[in-house]
Amino acid sequence: MKSNLLGPGSLAFVIFFSVAAWSRENSVPAKQRVDLLVTGGLLVTMDGGRVIYDDGSVAVKGDTIVAVGPSATINAKFTGLVKIDARGKLVMPGFINGHTHVPMTLFRGLHDDVTLDDWLRKYIFPAEAKNVTEDFVRWGTRLAAAEQIRSGVTTFADMYYFEDAVAEETKAAGMRGVLGETWIDFPAPDNKNETEMLRYTDTFLKKWNGDSLIHAAVAPHSIYTCSRKTLQDAAGLARKYHAPILIHVAEMKKEWDDSEKQNGLSPVQFLDKVGILGPEVVAAHCIFVDDADRKTLAQRQVGCMHNPSSNMMLASGVSPVPEMRAAGIAVGLGTDGPAGSNNDLDLMEEIDLAAKLAKITKMDPLALNAKAVVEMATIEGARALHLEKEIGSLESGKKADLIVIGLDGPNAVPMYDVYAQLAYALKGNDVETVVIGGRVVMRDHKLLTIKEDEVVPKAREYGKRIAASLGLQ
Amino acid sequence: MKSNLLGPGSLAFVIFFSVAAWSRENSVPAKQRVDLLVTGGLLVTMDGGRVIYDDGSVAVKGDTIVAVGPSATINAKFTGLVKIDARGKLVMPGFINGHTHVPMTLFRGLHDDVTLDDWLRKYIFPAEAKNVTEDFVRWGTRLAAAEQIRSGVTTFADMYYFEDAVAEETKAAGMRGVLGETWIDFPAPDNKNETEMLRYTDTFLKKWNGDSLIHAAVAPHSIYTCSRKTLQDAAGLARKYHAPILIHVAEMKKEWDDSEKQNGLSPVQFLDKVGILGPEVVAAHCIFVDDADRKTLAQRQVGCMHNPSSNMMLASGVSPVPEMRAAGIAVGLGTDGPAGSNNDLDLMEEIDLAAKLAKITKMDPLALNAKAVVEMATIEGARALHLEKEIGSLESGKKADLIVIGLDGPNAVPMYDVYAQLAYALKGNDVETVVIGGRVVMRDHKLLTIKEDEVVPKAREYGKRIAASLGLQ
Repeated sequence: MKSNLLGPGSLAFVIFFSVAAWSRENSVPAKQRVDLLVTGGLLVTMDGGRVIYDDGSVAVKGDTIVAVGPSATINAKFTGLVKIDARGKLVMPGFINGHTHVPMTLFRGLHDDVTLDDWLRKYIFPAEAKNVTEDFVRWGTRLAAAEQIRSGVTTFADMYYFEDAVAEETKAAGMRGVLGETWIDFPAPDNKNETEMLRYTDTFLKKWNGDSLIHAAVAPHSIYTCSRKTLQDAAGLARKYHAPILIHVAEMKKEWDDSEKQNGLSPVQFLDKVGILGPEVVAAHCIFVDDADRKTLAQRQVGCMHNPSSNMMLASGVSPVPEMRAAGIAVGLGTDGPAGSNNDLDLMEEIDLAAKLAKITKMDPLALNAKAVVEMATIEGARALHLEKEIGSLESGKKADLIVIGLDGPNAVPMYDVYAQLAYALKGNDVETVVIGGRVVMRDHKLLTIKEDEVVPKAREYGKRIAASLGLQ
Repeated sequence: MKSNLLGPGSLAFVIFFSVAAWSRENSVPAKQRVDLLVTGGLLVTMDGGRVIYDDGSVAVKGDTIVAVGPSATINAKFTGLVKIDARGKLVMPGFINGHTHVPMTLFRGLHDDVTLDDWLRKYIFPAEAKNVTEDFVRWGTRLAAAEQIRSGVTTFADMYYFEDAVAEETKAAGMRGVLGETWIDFPAPDNKNETEMLRYTDTFLKKWNGDSLIHAAVAPHSIYTCSRKTLQDAAGLARKYHAPILIHVAEMKKEWDDSEKQNGLSPVQFLDKVGILGPEVVAAHCIFVDDADRKTLAQRQVGCMHNPSSNMMLASGVSPVPEMRAAGIAVGLGTDGPAGSNNDLDLMEEIDLAAKLAKITKMDPLALNAKAVVEMATIEGARALHLEKEIGSLESGKKADLIVIGLDGPNAVPMYDVYAQLAYALKGNDVETVVIGGRVVMRDHKLLTIKEDEVVPKAREYGKRIAASLGLQ
């Protein structure tokens, strides 16, 4: 029977070809394979247009973002080797801690309630002379990395000693760092004189040149601890390697008074005169900066880092952040070190505090709003570190440094404005998942790159040893 | 055979009597059975001597502490029906949130960045008129209770409408509350005129009289929203029932200016003149209080509540806390409501902020230290609420309101000073377990009295409805 030709086998054959033909005609292009897909979140990009997607996704290849957009678009185009389901959660760029001294985390809360000058000269410098070794620096950095990742910090700028060890530990923790070896005019725990500092720093800058996570930098401490020559040599070395220069600027009234007396110039004008200021400089604090200073900082494209907790705790003064922003200066946020000048590394507290401190200081609730302080913690912080092409927003081509924040806590609801919620209601602990350079370093509150059960007991052990060395126990 | 008398049965008989005799001779007194034993913690009592036990325990019978001391002593004497092992953790009295408006948690972050006067008159009062019902108040209170318990608050003082519903929900959540029905000279969401206010409040005060957790109170809003008659009637009613009087005092410069203009007196002097001030008054804010005002507040034994976040956020001004404490006034801490004036209910942030704000305002890092602000959150807060015989420290005879704080996070180590750690490094989320009146309301971060999975979605739903009512969405 002819009908045999259309028996079961033939029928299957026909159907197969029909479907294949239909598929060719209505072809869906194969999805592009990426390494990581973060999907379905309330996506706060902090890009140029400050675009927020109610349901947005991010695609990541290697350490770089390849696409950001509505989930429907991204999911149609990409498939991810690793997936993070961010539905019901907030996704945004990681926070940038623009000024700290991470190994000092082992001095957390050492001698609170003293002035900065006393604190430095009577307590911190002696405590450092007695306790700071390369081992101290390594454990302090690990501890600080754990605390920072837990609260959503993906990049930090550091100034300390044995900075090469800080860099190794930072890289091991999977964090991004702008890490400056400190130059100071007295024998430091690592280098005892300028010759040693120069040799150490030269090797340090060479070693990390081109690293994907670590930006090695030079950190002349301040005008009150470094001679003009030290400042100039440090800056010269940094510029030879196109490295950042990290420095404390105009943090204390005494610093300003002494500079006026000794140099006839404000700290900013003095630094400008001796050739330090330029587009690779990151200036921490900038409290005592007048209108002329702000113009100079803007002209020289210096990035500034505001540290509200530290400035309040040490009663240093209040940086004129709204005026600095108005002058076009990029102003980021920092926690400072946690040794009696904060005492934590939680940048979300600095976001909250920066807004509140500006409002009360100006007696104007409009002085600095929620959106502005979230900018300072992300894209403006990146700009202040001169890394705005690399980090600070979620955009194609930038490094995949992002955080996922839970919105199910009682403190997270209701939400009328996402920036207000970030600035004033959400907490460091609401950060659930952290990705740095495409690598998941914390997932659902679990640290993946640091052994907390080793670091925490070791920190306690160091605490006992340090207290004993200072006769506190 | 005689030996039969010493057969197996007889031998057992002899052994039994020998052991019984030995037990009598070496008698260990039977341990006293208590309902709850919290053992082995770093115990910060906040008692008169500010005693801290490195290894301390607390025994609780019913809702009351029956013993506090070294673990060896307490464990030898007591056995607990319920046990909380606090080894490696910090145990202390629960925090006292001395001023808030808990139902307003549903307005969290509504209209930030405006002045207090504008915020109240243009946004909050209209939002309340459109949205505040008894149901709103119930859900807002539940949400606030969850957030407060999570961050270690065990007692709060509230001023709002439908306060009887606040009281019912507070009791259901197992929290302690000083809860004031608000009197105000315009139609409130619950009572439209003074006759209604009086009737409602009278019933409210009678109903809760003698309750173990709820202290019903009367809350005339302020001198700028209540006539002299309203203030006096409210105070009279409170005094009839020996109930607390909660009121906003000298929060705004405008309030002070207007009072000087209209009454020729500062807000404090005006309130004193019309007979409001007395040892049952809890005055929130007290920003614009001069030397004479402070003397009056001390003489009248008024408790004051400092709200640093709110005062900074709304740029209201800075309360002279060190001067108030020096004048002998009991000063506690409050979060204020979270509707654009904080925006959370985390008292640990107020502890941190109170110290930092005093330091920067006085430009003196010694202005207010860590121990002082922890006192303000506990025993001084209790004194400001006139409840120091009941709560605020861990002492035999006081209510068993205590919290257990984890010390294993990276932010918790090292620890050189426990008060500094509490004030500046530990966070609300480090609170693991909360006991109020002997009842465990949170254990290991799990709330036992509130269904968060119901409250959080409901809060989101309310958020949408409120935003729509104000044309925000």
